[in-house]
Amino acid sequence: MRYRFEYDTMGAVEVPYDKYWGAQTQRSLNNFEIGEPASMPKSLIYAMVLVKKASAMANMHFNVLDAKKAHLIIKACDAILDGKYDDNFPLVIWQTGSGTQTNMNVNEVIVNVAQVINGGSLEDKHKILHPNDDVNMSQSSNDTFPTAMSIAVYKLLTDNTIPNVALLRDALNSKAQEYSEVKKVGRTHLMDAAPLTLGQEFSGYVSQLDHALAVLRFAMQHLSELAIGGTAVGTGQNAPDGFADKVAKIIAGFTDMPFVSSANKFEAISANDAMVEISSALKITAVSLLHITNNIRFLASGPRCGIGEIILPANEPGSSIMPGKVNPTQNEALAMVCSQVIGNDIAVTTGGLQGHFQLNTFKPLMVHNVLESARLLGDACKSFAIKAVNGITPNYKKIKHNLENNLMMVTALSPYIGYDNAAKIAKMALSEEITLRQAASELGFLSPEKYDELMSSCL
Amino acid sequence: MRYRFEYDTMGAVEVPYDKYWGAQTQRSLNNFEIGEPASMPKSLIYAMVLVKKASAMANMHFNVLDAKKAHLIIKACDAILDGKYDDNFPLVIWQTGSGTQTNMNVNEVIVNVAQVINGGSLEDKHKILHPNDDVNMSQSSNDTFPTAMSIAVYKLLTDNTIPNVALLRDALNSKAQEYSEVKKVGRTHLMDAAPLTLGQEFSGYVSQLDHALAVLRFAMQHLSELAIGGTAVGTGQNAPDGFADKVAKIIAGFTDMPFVSSANKFEAISANDAMVEISSALKITAVSLLHITNNIRFLASGPRCGIGEIILPANEPGSSIMPGKVNPTQNEALAMVCSQVIGNDIAVTTGGLQGHFQLNTFKPLMVHNVLESARLLGDACKSFAIKAVNGITPNYKKIKHNLENNLMMVTALSPYIGYDNAAKIAKMALSEEITLRQAASELGFLSPEKYDELMSSCL
Amino acid sequence: MRYRFEYDTMGAVEVPYDKYWGAQTQRSLNNFEIGEPASMPKSLIYAMVLVKKASAMANMHFNVLDAKKAHLIIKACDAILDGKYDDNFPLVIWQTGSGTQTNMNVNEVIVNVAQVINGGSLEDKHKILHPNDDVNMSQSSNDTFPTAMSIAVYKLLTDNTIPNVALLRDALNSKAQEYSEVKKVGRTHLMDAAPLTLGQEFSGYVSQLDHALAVLRFAMQHLSELAIGGTAVGTGQNAPDGFADKVAKIIAGFTDMPFVSSANKFEAISANDAMVEISSALKITAVSLLHITNNIRFLASGPRCGIGEIILPANEPGSSIMPGKVNPTQNEALAMVCSQVIGNDIAVTTGGLQGHFQLNTFKPLMVHNVLESARLLGDACKSFAIKAVNGITPNYKKIKHNLENNLMMVTALSPYIGYDNAAKIAKMALSEEITLRQAASELGFLSPEKYDELMSSCL
Amino acid sequence: MRYRFEYDTMGAVEVPYDKYWGAQTQRSLNNFEIGEPASMPKSLIYAMVLVKKASAMANMHFNVLDAKKAHLIIKACDAILDGKYDDNFPLVIWQTGSGTQTNMNVNEVIVNVAQVINGGSLEDKHKILHPNDDVNMSQSSNDTFPTAMSIAVYKLLTDNTIPNVALLRDALNSKAQEYSEVKKVGRTHLMDAAPLTLGQEFSGYVSQLDHALAVLRFAMQHLSELAIGGTAVGTGQNAPDGFADKVAKIIAGFTDMPFVSSANKFEAISANDAMVEISSALKITAVSLLHITNNIRFLASGPRCGIGEIILPANEPGSSIMPGKVNPTQNEALAMVCSQVIGNDIAVTTGGLQGHFQLNTFKPLMVHNVLESARLLGDACKSFAIKAVNGITPNYKKIKHNLENNLMMVTALSPYIGYDNAAKIAKMALSEEITLRQAASELGFLSPEKYDELMSSCL
Repeated sequence: MRYRFEYDTMGAVEVPYDKYWGAQTQRSLNNFEIGEPASMPKSLIYAMVLVKKASAMANMHFNVLDAKKAHLIIKACDAILDGKYDDNFPLVIWQTGSGTQTNMNVNEVIVNVAQVINGGSLEDKHKILHPNDDVNMSQSSNDTFPTAMSIAVYKLLTDNTIPNVALLRDALNSKAQEYSEVKKVGRTHLMDAAPLTLGQEFSGYVSQLDHALAVLRFAMQHLSELAIGGTAVGTGQNAPDGFADKVAKIIAGFTDMPFVSSANKFEAISANDAMVEISSALKITAVSLLHITNNIRFLASGPRCGIGEIILPANEPGSSIMPGKVNPTQNEALAMVCSQVIGNDIAVTTGGLQGHFQLNTFKPLMVHNVLESARLLGDACKSFAIKAVNGITPNYKKIKHNLENNLMMVTALSPYIGYDNAAKIAKMALSEEITLRQAASELGFLSPEKYDELMSSCL
Repeated sequence: MRYRFEYDTMGAVEVPYDKYWGAQTQRSLNNFEIGEPASMPKSLIYAMVLVKKASAMANMHFNVLDAKKAHLIIKACDAILDGKYDDNFPLVIWQTGSGTQTNMNVNEVIVNVAQVINGGSLEDKHKILHPNDDVNMSQSSNDTFPTAMSIAVYKLLTDNTIPNVALLRDALNSKAQEYSEVKKVGRTHLMDAAPLTLGQEFSGYVSQLDHALAVLRFAMQHLSELAIGGTAVGTGQNAPDGFADKVAKIIAGFTDMPFVSSANKFEAISANDAMVEISSALKITAVSLLHITNNIRFLASGPRCGIGEIILPANEPGSSIMPGKVNPTQNEALAMVCSQVIGNDIAVTTGGLQGHFQLNTFKPLMVHNVLESARLLGDACKSFAIKAVNGITPNYKKIKHNLENNLMMVTALSPYIGYDNAAKIAKMALSEEITLRQAASELGFLSPEKYDELMSSCL
Repeated sequence: MRYRFEYDTMGAVEVPYDKYWGAQTQRSLNNFEIGEPASMPKSLIYAMVLVKKASAMANMHFNVLDAKKAHLIIKACDAILDGKYDDNFPLVIWQTGSGTQTNMNVNEVIVNVAQVINGGSLEDKHKILHPNDDVNMSQSSNDTFPTAMSIAVYKLLTDNTIPNVALLRDALNSKAQEYSEVKKVGRTHLMDAAPLTLGQEFSGYVSQLDHALAVLRFAMQHLSELAIGGTAVGTGQNAPDGFADKVAKIIAGFTDMPFVSSANKFEAISANDAMVEISSALKITAVSLLHITNNIRFLASGPRCGIGEIILPANEPGSSIMPGKVNPTQNEALAMVCSQVIGNDIAVTTGGLQGHFQLNTFKPLMVHNVLESARLLGDACKSFAIKAVNGITPNYKKIKHNLENNLMMVTALSPYIGYDNAAKIAKMALSEEITLRQAASELGFLSPEKYDELMSSCL
Repeated sequence: MRYRFEYDTMGAVEVPYDKYWGAQTQRSLNNFEIGEPASMPKSLIYAMVLVKKASAMANMHFNVLDAKKAHLIIKACDAILDGKYDDNFPLVIWQTGSGTQTNMNVNEVIVNVAQVINGGSLEDKHKILHPNDDVNMSQSSNDTFPTAMSIAVYKLLTDNTIPNVALLRDALNSKAQEYSEVKKVGRTHLMDAAPLTLGQEFSGYVSQLDHALAVLRFAMQHLSELAIGGTAVGTGQNAPDGFADKVAKIIAGFTDMPFVSSANKFEAISANDAMVEISSALKITAVSLLHITNNIRFLASGPRCGIGEIILPANEPGSSIMPGKVNPTQNEALAMVCSQVIGNDIAVTTGGLQGHFQLNTFKPLMVHNVLESARLLGDACKSFAIKAVNGITPNYKKIKHNLENNLMMVTALSPYIGYDNAAKIAKMALSEEITLRQAASELGFLSPEKYDELMSSCL
């Protein structure tokens, strides 16, 4: 394999001759062979490139970076954002806890892309840009990395999670409307209970997701507060006055998202509570979704020996050994995703609680888990909405059969004959295997006519 | 032991002759010997009594309960709320997952207290009130229990958690203000880093708690939506029209808290997402507090062989074997409390994700954990604020010594001599055990005068 | 309120005149008003007293403590273990993370009990014993507290958890044996699947608990390694040679449990991995139990509109509004307990991962959670075995009906006619609402006679 | 894009013309666009292919599969295991919870590879093998998938996790031996405490990992029990007698690992407790490792303003803004990995607790998390051992300085002058900023000579 030498303050390092990264990227590559290669999320890298571009513009604005260098950085960033250099970000999540190595990876690639754009080559010993002095000017990993985290997560929530949770919410709401009059047996403690409509049952799911969406949106406010401008420890040392606000504004413009400069950079760097908060919001959403997906698949259980009150679309053969079997696979995928999100939240929590002094050094862990959770939830909600919920139909026959056999219809009689007598009716009907109507009459509490009158109110 | 007989739909049960509970309470007592006796939280019981009182008033208002019975129920509730019957609620958390047995415990005690108030005795076979038909009128365990959960938790947050987190926030803020000019070494990755002030360091903690308080307050909105009026499965069967809003309004009046009727009773009964949400908010707060308490005790470590930049009050001897030892015990208590809150959140999560059909049956588990977390956090924040934070003083001597030895002051030189040269200075100073000033001069990068000028900006 | 003065190295403290505790206990009481009063588990206190007694015997044996003092300590310990001084241990869990304050509480009470036993009074200024020099001789909180943790937990597992999990295992096994021939429909993905017997279904639960018991017993080995003898940091400073082994042996004798001296005291004090391990073992057990309790209640769901293949004992009325309702309340209590154990494990994990340097200071948190989990699991398994599992009966009628309607019986045909043809039969039977036998014949794959022959193998 | 048609019981599906998968794989691909593509772990796929090969051999042995077909399956499996068809397994983790779609993916690829090996082509309408009748003969997804899970996890633990945890254990042990005489200050509650040696400190870490390794090995026993032979629900329907044992033996032979046939197939399929157990074991290990990595980086903190008693190797520049900074990056990577493992364990727990009836349908989730945890822990332990621990050296100067200033050396005086007097010495030394020796003398408790004599024992 052919190599060239790249240099940093510790000396020379061999780098594959055709790669745009530099010495520090290579050191990280050599030192951290942990897990899948190149696991640092691409969306985080892109967000970091955006930070670099915005910073170059701000540095030019404040006259600390000369225009030529600034324009080279901007061009290099644009080229990277076009996806032309994707294989130059080989680092893993499991590196330094500040993400410094990924910050330097981005800085180094920008330097070398700019070098080539400027007519030079990767072999050049003298580079027109310096990764620290120019590309990283007015910045530190400690403020750029959490800024990139915020951007990447906010964007994913905006583009995927929120719209897809909303899509599922709307799919459930359509069913809630469509079946608002389909009366069925209720179940509490898994046992037959007073009736409700299928639409009412689904409306509960809608309300759960409405609340989950509100929690997600609230948590995004904390996420919108950017650390950039705090530099190493939050004081903004080595950055010009006004840099923080300027960069935040530029990034807000680039992304069309309401980013602002964090009011307290010490918090934004030393802790990553915004990540803990959004992770918790995703977990809360996952808990709601587990409730929903589990209930829907139980309602669809059968086809003959379960509850079977609704029918899910048959998307694929369900068993390798049992012919003709169809399973609630979309529900299962969503349930697994939710379980993952709950676990990821504990990973984020564990990282969040351990930050020491001026820097929480669990940043790559935290952003990895939040991005995974946000994507999985969004993807799974979309899949579940389209491949499962939209195709749900009631099994009217089973619904009617169950409703008619439901002993807890007796609840409607309580206000008239009292709880104790109503209980006697239900027990007799169960043990004698007769209807409530028959039992009510045999016990002498109600004539069949009165029974029918009272029941009509809830059927 | 003397007994009397009490009756329910399953027959007669022996009850201690002097206790006010009835048959169903006794059955629960007999059937659930799990964990500490009488573990169901008293605040939940009291909240349930409030629900009973409000319901009686509403039932009277809607003319479904006659005034005499209503007034008896109200009087009995008031007597219970006065604390006169506290030993009549012997049930445990680990009972039916709907809390029905505690609902019936409250119903039964109200019946018997009313009986005695009305001139009767516990031995009376005929009771003036019926626990289900009268005291539980227009209600179900399924709506009263989650309503009581909301009330008990909302009240505890209002009376303890929120004010005590705020108290700690203010105590930290006083220190942030007081020491806003005390320049000190920063630390990132546990390693010496660019400087900041002690006040800035503490301001980060203040910002963390400001965000935590915002999350707690947001979560209280969901909590303020009461399930009452949904009865068994959310339809409001057997309750008069308008009952839900009426009771919510009465409870809001009693408590002076902004309770409203839940817009979707199916959600409020089948899921307990408001509990998951507030538990998550408490967890988010706990993560912030762990960061704060851990950092403060590390800053205070020593007295001679640690970091020792601040001094915590010496509240008690710290060791049974090491004489004169003083430890950061308040920090430890808070750290343990935060760990408990993080664990409790997983208990709530596990309960929250398993609700089936029309009823989540993990309600006692959920409310127990949320109440414990809310109380522990509140109590521990108060203790930490008063016994530790208020007494923090800087160890100026150590702070000065560290600051002067901090190699990362070199960061200030970068914009002038470049990152690479600055690194050479730092490395030389470390290996030669000399000052940065000396190294800068020896390497010929900067005269001592220029060095001093550049450094003055950050010292 | 009347007080007397007690003294420690920080000076005088007012103590209620009739209490046996001393200055340090009182300081803790004053400084830690967090959560329920006196929450430090009694079993931990008793275990600590046992450590004190054993240590006094060992100190006498090694001639470092004179016999008179040793005998006074032993007598005082015995009196405390008789339960006569239970209200003298007022401290909370949320104190110093080493448990030093509880160690001193025990030391101080022993001093004062001995004082009175020796003819003195609580008011005596001069005490015959010194809490540190005599009662705590050769010990530190750092080795006595984890030793007491091990003893208390080991004992609770031996007396409650293990036998009660085994009791439940045996109850399930009885059912597995009794119903080993009751053929029923299987369910995978909640959908009807190939058949098995009810006994086979229950045998799976038995196997789960057999494995859980093995995990619990394995974890008890780590737990049996006692820290005592390590004193402050693990070196055994200030303890005579041989003290560690001697005390471990005495404690093993007292308790009839296989305690040994930990081979590495540094681990036993600086980490509490044995607590993390046993907590994980309890969590593993809880996961198995959740599976079991959930499945049993789903099998019992109905009575008319659920699966209803087994019948659970009706222990109490299930609803305050729905007359005649019976619920799987024991299953719910167990499910809530399991959820708590899973949460508690995260609390223990969070405490376990944060130990710093020579001492993990989350000890009271850890032992509290492990003791709670062990007790709740034991109690709940016993209750579930006796009040639920022992009373389970099959609903033969429903089982038979379901089995006969089960389309997945078609699996038996695959080896003869192939998976594809078998699938056609199942699909036709479902859509035409006919039997598999009819469909097989109509499709011309199998004569009714051949069908019956093939089916006989699995019915 | 060119397609061909593939068929299953639901009809025809378009498949890319050059891919070896069939209809059911394609359906899954179309229906589950969740998360990263092709996320199902390769090691799981390979383990599944091994199961197919072993099953074909067993089927041939029991004369239910003809030799020609068996040999074709075996050849196809070998070709896949050679890595020639890696891009034919495009499915994701987030599919059906039984892994049926991956089982069918493997079955289908074997069919088509065999077709080509046998001289046919992918376009052939008639295939020599049937994916269900032949390749899946005597099997179900429900037994093959958990079997493949066990194999893949067991193998990874054997090849990576166990040896690398052991490697780290040995690296720590070398340091424990090497520095067994380097006396240093101890720290409890983060505060200066009685002394120990650096070697003793590291020996505690060794003991932690010894215990962790024992837990991992114990958990592997459960993991070695294979589900294969249980087929759909555990009864072994459609498999020949003896199939379970035969296949387990063949797999044990292939892998040289001690696999056995699970004694209870109902447990092995309906629950996945072996996965919960091994995940818990990995979590226990992670908790120990967090303790170790955190302590080592705190000991190395500085270089000038921290504890700084040990020096970690400088592997790379640490900061993009602070020149010359070196950070404990290997410790941070390991700490992040441990946090991930703790989170993954909750994902596995959440999946494990929800299995319903005859099948836990969270299998892909569980195996994904366990494989990730096992790999990350192994990789990170190796990296940490080689890149960090092996290069640790004591900072003798700092160690000596701290030891000499340590006030808790006073502990050695207690047995002679009593705890109270010793405390006076420590307090005076602290407040007067003098040595213990001076304070002892000034207070008149000990002559300097006696002081030196007593101290010599512990220095």
